[in-house]
This record gives sequence, structure tokens and C-alpha cells, in this order.
Amino acid sequence: MVGVSEMGAVKPLLAAAAGRRPERRPVWFMRQAGRSLPEYRALRADRGMLEACFDPAMVTEITLQPVRRHDTDGAILFSDIVVPLKAAGIDLDIVAGTGPVIAHPVRTAADVAAIARLEPDAVGAVAAAVSMLRAELDPTPTALIGFAGAPFTLASYLIEGGPSRHYAHTKAMMYGNPELWHDLMGRLVDITVTFLRVQIQAGVQAVQLFDSWAGMLSRRDYEQYVAPHSTRVFAELDGAGAGGAAIPRIHFGVGTGELLVPMARVGADVVGVDWRVPLQEAIGRIGPGPALQGNLDPTVLFAGDEVIAAHVARVIDDADHAIAAGARGHIFNLGHGVLPDTDPDTITRVVDLVHSA
Amino acid sequence: MVGVSEMGAVKPLLAAAAGRRPERRPVWFMRQAGRSLPEYRALRADRGMLEACFDPAMVTEITLQPVRRHDTDGAILFSDIVVPLKAAGIDLDIVAGTGPVIAHPVRTAADVAAIARLEPDAVGAVAAAVSMLRAELDPTPTALIGFAGAPFTLASYLIEGGPSRHYAHTKAMMYGNPELWHDLMGRLVDITVTFLRVQIQAGVQAVQLFDSWAGMLSRRDYEQYVAPHSTRVFAELDGAGAGGAAIPRIHFGVGTGELLVPMARVGADVVGVDWRVPLQEAIGRIGPGPALQGNLDPTVLFAGDEVIAAHVARVIDDADHAIAAGARGHIFNLGHGVLPDTDPDTITRVVDLVHSA
Repeated sequence: MVGVSEMGAVKPLLAAAAGRRPERRPVWFMRQAGRSLPEYRALRADRGMLEACFDPAMVTEITLQPVRRHDTDGAILFSDIVVPLKAAGIDLDIVAGTGPVIAHPVRTAADVAAIARLEPDAVGAVAAAVSMLRAELDPTPTALIGFAGAPFTLASYLIEGGPSRHYAHTKAMMYGNPELWHDLMGRLVDITVTFLRVQIQAGVQAVQLFDSWAGMLSRRDYEQYVAPHSTRVFAELDGAGAGGAAIPRIHFGVGTGELLVPMARVGADVVGVDWRVPLQEAIGRIGPGPALQGNLDPTVLFAGDEVIAAHVARVIDDADHAIAAGARGHIFNLGHGVLPDTDPDTITRVVDLVHSA
Repeated sequence: MVGVSEMGAVKPLLAAAAGRRPERRPVWFMRQAGRSLPEYRALRADRGMLEACFDPAMVTEITLQPVRRHDTDGAILFSDIVVPLKAAGIDLDIVAGTGPVIAHPVRTAADVAAIARLEPDAVGAVAAAVSMLRAELDPTPTALIGFAGAPFTLASYLIEGGPSRHYAHTKAMMYGNPELWHDLMGRLVDITVTFLRVQIQAGVQAVQLFDSWAGMLSRRDYEQYVAPHSTRVFAELDGAGAGGAAIPRIHFGVGTGELLVPMARVGADVVGVDWRVPLQEAIGRIGPGPALQGNLDPTVLFAGDEVIAAHVARVIDDADHAIAAGARGHIFNLGHGVLPDTDPDTITRVVDLVHSA
């Protein structure tokens, strides 16, 4: 049965997302698989990022590294936001120290029209990794979380040509040519849905949609230009699990204090909250319903054991108040990804603190 | 008489800040003096940033360029956040394409203890520029705005050693060694107060405190680690104008939706709002009292005349609702600085739109 460990219990992360009482408070970390781990750096020393993302054995091993080391309740599928774009034929690379670099930024109607659909076979390597991961994780308490970038964040990379500080080209298209914008976003929804369905059919037990840069938008702009598309992503995943089962859908962005209400409304079962908004305040804005995920400031992990323990206790206390105010459950996480210089032993200690709280 | 043009009328920006009815809606732009202007790029072609900031004739000319070109109601003193740190003897440079680079990042008690006071004479060049600017601007409707970085943003540059994405070292000191943090912040308050008093005594008619990166903090952290220090900056400027006159104090940061209430409470007469929070919503959070400044998204200036006109009209409408809800006045501005690639003619058209609305 999906989501039940050999011990017969529902996995803690899935229990919390569904509003059931978990055996222990579930915890995982965005970017837990990655540069903070020496075993990851060793494995990636002579392999490019995209090469790793399309190699099922590499994806499996990198996804499992932090689970083994830290005993996290979530295993986030190792991937990158641009993986489905690459698989759909867009010419891009991931350059160390820079991030994604798009060979031909998408700016014109012809550029948008040239974006092809994603064929499921083109991400067969990801499906293979999911199967291998389920075999490893099924006997454990750890749930496997699928991974995709949200249409807005994908659009921003395509239009800017890579990471950006101000998103001037992205917003210029959004404001100046809304028809073209919505055409592009529609194509990115299709790619994202295909990518997530492949992962779900192969066995991921939850999905997280990363709208990393949505916080650059006002609520008005988010509702007009982004929400309809993210809504379609989540709607098309309804009952996409085995036998029509529901798959918990986690929705996350950074600096989204102004956007928590619309980001919850697009259909999220779990709303990720960054460190700027206390969890009880977040549920006050959203209203009762979804579970919350978050929200320790990743920089706290550099401030020493005593400070870390105090902040972990505070987040847990905030979460308990949020649950009392109507949040369905709480999944402990950082408010953004693990920073590369983080001491992995510190991360392990946070897991212990959360599990023993 | 301070703040009154030859025509005998109070300058529009000062009227709006004081809750009087301005002759026209005042407008200026953060980073209006700078890379968007070809005449600025020509002047800076063979002069370093710090060299320009300590040359009274250069400061005067660069400050006036956008006023001449656009007819803005504010002339923001051309400077850089690190100018008073340089003048206090800290070894730093401003590197083109990177920003400030601090030779020895401030991380230890010895580093903090080594930070000297700012001697007013060390920023005599800035005072000289202010005098020259007043002579030029007094017959015009344009008010001269003094410039300083807030202690938190200064601390972040000193601790990180330059611009940062995550402020991990800054927050690690803040959380992990609050005593050292408050010592550092106290020294930066002293430097900032000296720098602003020099500007006020030389004749600036308003001041803007840029806490550019405060939006990286939660409200809890802002109130605990930052607000007491920014409060002291503003308090020490009380009645610092000629004959004890009040100088309007503008307070600005980016991504500060969560912080608008405490940032207003530290003593600001005018609260700058970035583009994420509509002005009427901002005054709803803050409560009646201060004037508001903002908040057109700088990327809108890339979206064509029709879109620009619609967004300008919307900001003005938001501002009128904010005034009806208790804001003392409105100073039109962007929600962040002018982006370097902005067409200067577009900026001129925005000034016309605001003045004719």
C-alpha cells in the first residue's frame, strides 16, 4: 500500500500532509541533497549537473545520501528546475557557479512557438530513478517527494536566459505582451504536468512545486499572470496517484509573505513558508486548511548549537500554534535551501532535535 | 527661508512630507543619478566611484543631471552607502560590476573595536557639494535629499565583505553573538548620525535612510536587532535643521512588507514602500500618520508607454486611497532603484504623467 512502511504505519511526512497524527514530527531540508555533503561533492567531482540529473543511479544515490546521513522523513528527488526544459529540447546547460544558462533566451512569439511538448520518454531516466528509490525507501519511514519548478520560475529562466536579480525582461513580457506571456505559461504548464505525472506514475509519494522567484511579484500580478497556470498544474495532478489516490502537493516560494493566500488557493495541500513569516501568522493569513512546511532561517545553522536549539524550539512552538489555528499539520524544513557551507553534522542534530521534541 | 523657492511656495516634496498640499505631486526616482543617463556614463568614464563621491564638483553635477533632464522634485545627493565607512578609515573600494569590497571583513571583537568614529571633516567634500547644490536648487521647485545607508545594511556589507545573497555571516553574528552585534551597530549609528548631520548642517532639506537589505529579516529579528539602532539614528536628527527645524526623514528598504510597521515606528516621517505592497495596503498596516513614497515596479519602465501610463495611474490611485486612509501625503517614486538599462526618455515621461495627473 502506498505510503505505508513495512512497520504498517503511514510515513510521518504523508501523515502530516493529510492531517493525520504522525508518529514523529516529519523533517526534511530543501537542498539536503547537494553541496553541503562531502559524499555529494565527491560523486559530482567529475560529473556535470545535467549529466547527473539524467543518470538514474546518480539520481538515486544523491537523493539517498542525506536520508542515510540525517534520517530525514522526506527524500527530495535530486533534479534541477531546468531538467524538463532540457528534456523538451531546449538548448541549455547548468554552469557551475552560475546556474542555468539558456542558449537562446525566449523573448519573441517565434521563440515561444518553438517550445515543444515534453515527451514522457525523454525523462525516462527520472522515472527509473524513482523506481529504484522506492525500492530503497519503502522499508523506511522516509517518503519520496517529486520535484518540479513552477511555470513562473521556469518562464523567468527562459526569458532572462539564466538567473536574474530584477526579472526585467520577464516582467516586461508579462506586462507588455500578456497574450504571449499566457501562451508561454500554458506551454510550461504542459511540460510541468508531464514531468510530475511521470514521477507520480513511477512512484513519488508527494510532489513539491518550486515557484522559487514568485516573491518578486505583487499579489495583484501573481493572481493575474501566474495563479491560473499554477492552478492548472495542481488540478491536472488530481487523483494522479496509483488507483486515483491523492498525492500531497507542496507549494513553495521565497519572500512570499504577500502571496501566501493565492499560493495556498492554487490547490496546495501543504504551503511552504519562508523564514520571514512565523507559521501561526501564515495560517492566520491563509485560513484553516492546508498543512504548513518550514521555516527555520538557513543562516541559523551557522550560529552555534545553543542558538540553533532555541530557534528549532521556536519554530516547533509556532507550528503548534498554527495547528491549533487550523493548519492540518506541520512538516519541519528550512525557510529556504541548505546553504552550501553548512556543516552536515549540524543538519543531523536538527533532525534529532525535531524528532525528539 | 528653508524649503521655500523664489516663487515663495513650499517645495512640493517638502509639502507632501509635512502633510501640506503640494503645488504638484512630487516625484523623484531612486538611482535617478546614475547609469541610466548617458551624461553620467560620460562623466564617470575615467573616474572611479569613490573618487566621484569625494569630489564636490562631480557630486554636484551628477546630482543635478537627472533634475535638469527630468524636472524631478527631489535631488538625491549622489553618494554611496559605503562613503562614510571609507571616510571613517575602513579599507574598502567600490568595484565596477561587483559593488563595495571590504578589504578585511568585520567578524571578530577586535574587528569591531577597530571601527573608528567618523570625523565630520572627513566628509567635508560632501558638505561642500551640498552647499553648491543648494545654490543651484534654491530657485527651483526641487528639494535636496541627503543620503545614508542604515546601520543594518552597512553592517551586512562590513561583515560579508561585500554584496551578499543570503547574509549568512551577518545573521550568524546577530544570532550567535548579540553583544558584539549591538556593539557594531552602535558604532555604525554614530557614523551614520555624523554623516547625516554634516549633510543637514550643509543644507539638505530631507534625508533618506536606505536600509536596502532589511527585507532579509523577519519582523521579530528586525525589532530585536535593528529597530533600536535605526530609532537612535532618527532620534539624533530631531531638530537638526537650521534653527532647530525638522528635516523630513524618509526610510526605505526592499521586500519589507513584513517590516512596514516597525520601519515606520523607528521615527520615519515618510515610509518608502516597494512595489509588492499597494500603497493603501501599506498605510492600512502602518496606521495613519506618515507620508508614503513609491512604488512603481522599476521593470514596468520596459513594458511600453501604454502599460507605463496604466501603472502610473494605478499607483496614483492607490496613493489617493492611502491618503484618504490617513497617509499624510505621497511622494511618487519607484519601488526600487532605476535599472541601468532604463531609457531616460521614459523616466522623463513618467515625471510628466505624475505632474499632470
